[in-house]
Amino acid sequence: MSQELVYRLMAELDALRLIDPHTHIDPRSPSATTLSDILGYHYYTELAHSTGLSRGQIEDPQLSPKERAERFLLHLDPINNTAQYAWLLEMARELFDFHAPRIDRFNWEALYDAAQARFDRPHWETEVLDASGLDAVFLTNDFDDPLTGFDTNRYVPCLRTDDLVFHLNRRTVRERLDRASGIDVHDVKTLRSALGELFQHFVKHGAKACAISLPPDFAPVAMRAGDINTVVRDIYGGSYDDLPHESSRQLSYFVFWTLAEFCAEFALPFDLMIGVHRNVYPQGVHQGRDLYDSRVSLYQYRELFNAFPQVRFPISVLASVTNQELVSYAWIFPNVIAHGHWWYSNTPSIIRRDLVARLEAIPRTKQIGYYSDMYKLEFALPKFRMFKRILAASLADEFVIARGWSEEDAVELGRQVLRGNVETVFGV
Amino acid sequence: MSQELVYRLMAELDALRLIDPHTHIDPRSPSATTLSDILGYHYYTELAHSTGLSRGQIEDPQLSPKERAERFLLHLDPINNTAQYAWLLEMARELFDFHAPRIDRFNWEALYDAAQARFDRPHWETEVLDASGLDAVFLTNDFDDPLTGFDTNRYVPCLRTDDLVFHLNRRTVRERLDRASGIDVHDVKTLRSALGELFQHFVKHGAKACAISLPPDFAPVAMRAGDINTVVRDIYGGSYDDLPHESSRQLSYFVFWTLAEFCAEFALPFDLMIGVHRNVYPQGVHQGRDLYDSRVSLYQYRELFNAFPQVRFPISVLASVTNQELVSYAWIFPNVIAHGHWWYSNTPSIIRRDLVARLEAIPRTKQIGYYSDMYKLEFALPKFRMFKRILAASLADEFVIARGWSEEDAVELGRQVLRGNVETVFGV
Amino acid sequence: MSQELVYRLMAELDALRLIDPHTHIDPRSPSATTLSDILGYHYYTELAHSTGLSRGQIEDPQLSPKERAERFLLHLDPINNTAQYAWLLEMARELFDFHAPRIDRFNWEALYDAAQARFDRPHWETEVLDASGLDAVFLTNDFDDPLTGFDTNRYVPCLRTDDLVFHLNRRTVRERLDRASGIDVHDVKTLRSALGELFQHFVKHGAKACAISLPPDFAPVAMRAGDINTVVRDIYGGSYDDLPHESSRQLSYFVFWTLAEFCAEFALPFDLMIGVHRNVYPQGVHQGRDLYDSRVSLYQYRELFNAFPQVRFPISVLASVTNQELVSYAWIFPNVIAHGHWWYSNTPSIIRRDLVARLEAIPRTKQIGYYSDMYKLEFALPKFRMFKRILAASLADEFVIARGWSEEDAVELGRQVLRGNVETVFGV
Repeated sequence: MSQELVYRLMAELDALRLIDPHTHIDPRSPSATTLSDILGYHYYTELAHSTGLSRGQIEDPQLSPKERAERFLLHLDPINNTAQYAWLLEMARELFDFHAPRIDRFNWEALYDAAQARFDRPHWETEVLDASGLDAVFLTNDFDDPLTGFDTNRYVPCLRTDDLVFHLNRRTVRERLDRASGIDVHDVKTLRSALGELFQHFVKHGAKACAISLPPDFAPVAMRAGDINTVVRDIYGGSYDDLPHESSRQLSYFVFWTLAEFCAEFALPFDLMIGVHRNVYPQGVHQGRDLYDSRVSLYQYRELFNAFPQVRFPISVLASVTNQELVSYAWIFPNVIAHGHWWYSNTPSIIRRDLVARLEAIPRTKQIGYYSDMYKLEFALPKFRMFKRILAASLADEFVIARGWSEEDAVELGRQVLRGNVETVFGV
Repeated sequence: MSQELVYRLMAELDALRLIDPHTHIDPRSPSATTLSDILGYHYYTELAHSTGLSRGQIEDPQLSPKERAERFLLHLDPINNTAQYAWLLEMARELFDFHAPRIDRFNWEALYDAAQARFDRPHWETEVLDASGLDAVFLTNDFDDPLTGFDTNRYVPCLRTDDLVFHLNRRTVRERLDRASGIDVHDVKTLRSALGELFQHFVKHGAKACAISLPPDFAPVAMRAGDINTVVRDIYGGSYDDLPHESSRQLSYFVFWTLAEFCAEFALPFDLMIGVHRNVYPQGVHQGRDLYDSRVSLYQYRELFNAFPQVRFPISVLASVTNQELVSYAWIFPNVIAHGHWWYSNTPSIIRRDLVARLEAIPRTKQIGYYSDMYKLEFALPKFRMFKRILAASLADEFVIARGWSEEDAVELGRQVLRGNVETVFGV
Repeated sequence: MSQELVYRLMAELDALRLIDPHTHIDPRSPSATTLSDILGYHYYTELAHSTGLSRGQIEDPQLSPKERAERFLLHLDPINNTAQYAWLLEMARELFDFHAPRIDRFNWEALYDAAQARFDRPHWETEVLDASGLDAVFLTNDFDDPLTGFDTNRYVPCLRTDDLVFHLNRRTVRERLDRASGIDVHDVKTLRSALGELFQHFVKHGAKACAISLPPDFAPVAMRAGDINTVVRDIYGGSYDDLPHESSRQLSYFVFWTLAEFCAEFALPFDLMIGVHRNVYPQGVHQGRDLYDSRVSLYQYRELFNAFPQVRFPISVLASVTNQELVSYAWIFPNVIAHGHWWYSNTPSIIRRDLVARLEAIPRTKQIGYYSDMYKLEFALPKFRMFKRILAASLADEFVIARGWSEEDAVELGRQVLRGNVETVFGV
């Protein structure tokens, strides 16, 4: 039967050891210390806020971790239909040995305590990595992260560049750049040198990617240094927090383009996460304020893809409508790679639709199945499981049944998108 | 077996008593008087026109109801694949006891007569409500509707505001507003007062919502009264039917924003039906002229959602591509609620896709499953049945099978989106 | 069982004789002469290029056909997951009697030789047409094609007009037009006459359609001859290869509109293939450089659809997101017809989604199921088979099972969209 087939494929996929190519893990505190760390993930705080908890209740600094956890755990009923809730239940079952079919006022404390008992184990970090089948996870490092004090083979550095591209008008960002690069930036030439120093530093510490998230109206073009020099001198001369819009845009394009040049020079893939508008809902909870306008096209990046044939661009799109363009651009451009299922597109029915369209039209070497985007290691297991189940079902339906593939071949395709391509694309 | 499961869930959902939260029912003539009333629904006239019947044939005022019905019933073959035709067959079977697998020249008259026999019954209106499981239906009332002469518990008033927002440049609309409000409007202040009078009137008569349909290029922002005063004085001074585009836009935004303010003051939800272009096909049949440009974003409404946290916004989107944004905005904004499956997105495969994306990511308290949008009560049964079957299948696949939910829990989720949330969102 | 049902429906559909309403067949060399002709199809060259073969390797003029084929056949592993690869395997199995489950270095030569043995048969062209169930195929003819030397009943001419609408600023195109029309074009009047001559010529030789592909930002409106006369005189006066953008746009709209007028006059359907940007990736292989921006709307064509009620517009959309608009516009406008699944939307999961949305909402007389878009006859079989399997599954699920249709009725619907509507829409 087909369901048995899916189970068999899932079992094979679930036995793989993986590398998670995009997370927000803090390598100095990678796993949760209390269940409040888990429930403080914006996927839960924003849903709690959306269903009636106030920001004050959610972010109350007076609460102990247990009180904060209680507050969330007793407010799960309005969201128990969501995929996010399903992650929590699966995490509780698989990692904390908590098997109730739902969390309620009678059992929330048992869950809290069961979780705490795990978190308090001396080797919990390694336990949870093992239970999740993870060999390594990629980080998201600020450009001025010293990258010391952790094992960069397990926690792979990745240079995150949003601040550089979008917030160089802020004095604090400029000061951080001067400090991190050791260069007194004051014009285009020194700005370029400072950016180069960051790449030197990151690559020396084992960084495997440069990454950035981009708003839907971003349409980068090459800027001439001469054109941008006045803007750079202006922001470095004055105390500009309010650069004119057009200058700000030009500066963003210039810094972005320069980053792509360094990606070429240092042979780093440039992860583009396309489509987010920041702070659409300023009254929202921390990290629960960003949304999007789904009217965006990869056509906006054609000049970039043409200008940097030697740079690999793993691309995530925020809205599912952009997935077909991602499929087509990855089919045509050698340097475009489909990368995971991001944020608002990281729910089962959207993943299924987007994944099948990729599997049937993008070369198998040019798609990376999934990353967790997690802040705490405990989320890898439920998030990857969700994806692997969908992958198993897709391989069963579209390859074993529809095309007559052997199960071995189907699993091999699954292995490649889950693990093999992470290795080849990022060189790990 | 899974099909058995779907049948069991469907049976439970189909036994629920419902409230239809958006219709175009005329409470003084809620059910059909002849089959011509049914076939005159634009869903049929426009398909007949699209497949070759001329406007003259369709709208010929000389025809008797039976002649008109005959004309449509003998022109069904080209559209017998459509969901719209399936509604007609199900209505015929369930309400008129007509069981032929298709309608043709041999049986059309039997159908006509069978329907007529029902329509002529003394309590047909109540019969059809009962057969359809409806406790109440929301109306779509012109702003100058006296709201008298019907039971507002069964037929719940709803203030429709398209004319006010988009057609205040028309003298007839201004005169209707003066008459309905009892105020001699001539500037921003009196305009605001007049709008307030409408809310007074509607709320006094049990209105439960304010509603409007909006074109895809509508992007409302707060207007300052001072900026808009000249425009208002201009249209009230002259006989302006041709307001300059920019002034017209500003006036629309101002009236719209003022309506939102009154929704806050009177605690009325503000139904936004987003994305329709009116009169795209002027040669089309009555109500069969509107289409859309699917390039629209809820991002256009960010200022509104932020400005009115106390107003609930049940939102319908015309194009399915906007559904993912609706899911994400309802996930983040406490005041955004997903509302039904509107018009061109009200066909089975689109509903299925949009519904599953909602069920897996929007809090269960923030989604209203379905409304019929009907003009005659007879359509509630086939339209809601279509939706309930899709809901039953989605609950079976995504919750009972994929997540191991009990059937009771799945039905309870179905009940909440079908009925419970109509009560809590609209306060009925 | 449902799978048995699908097989039965597929068997019926696969037994139909078809007319392929859009191809790029060269009627003077319709079938392949070597396997290199097959593998030179841009669907393979662009994937080879995307996965690492250089343009030099792909387009090397020194290679013999067998050497070129070898190069591709040994580079299939990275793309063996794609639908394109599945076409190749099915073609090999069904046309060349080659039954290996994959192509590799051990069997590529056997495949090459098996194919060659077929290509060398004296009546291979007729054999492959028969094996594919094709009675006729539509061509894509340059406007100056003499249309002689082939059987126009089997190879139906179709006037392709991209050059006229978009490249009249090129001297070579203008010279070709003068030559083909026998008219010395120098102003709007003579331009119009020349276009009319083309229609005369094509209709005389049995043309059944006028066709064009259009970029996403094309939004045609009627131009007044007076407004456009200066532009026409300018390009015919000078040697303009660099017409100002606005003039170029106006000229495009004028020529396009004039073509629509001649379609009305000569009763030719006007195939619109909407949404492609040409040369997005200039470094790509031949025919592998075009992509798209999915932000396009049929709303851009509203003036056209209104202005030409007597012209049938079979419409293909490049991005699946536009499919819902196509469904809605075909539902409302009598002259809009949904036409096939084009290029980047011609993969199984996209076809399935788009097809079901059409079958449930567009009148059955107004949708043409499929065309192959092929350059060599050998592709009709695997491409139509792919579509017919999806059609069979859709008919089974959505009509036989969900609506209780008889299998005969379901097959009849399939026959109509596959064959019947090609006959009625194009008058063949």
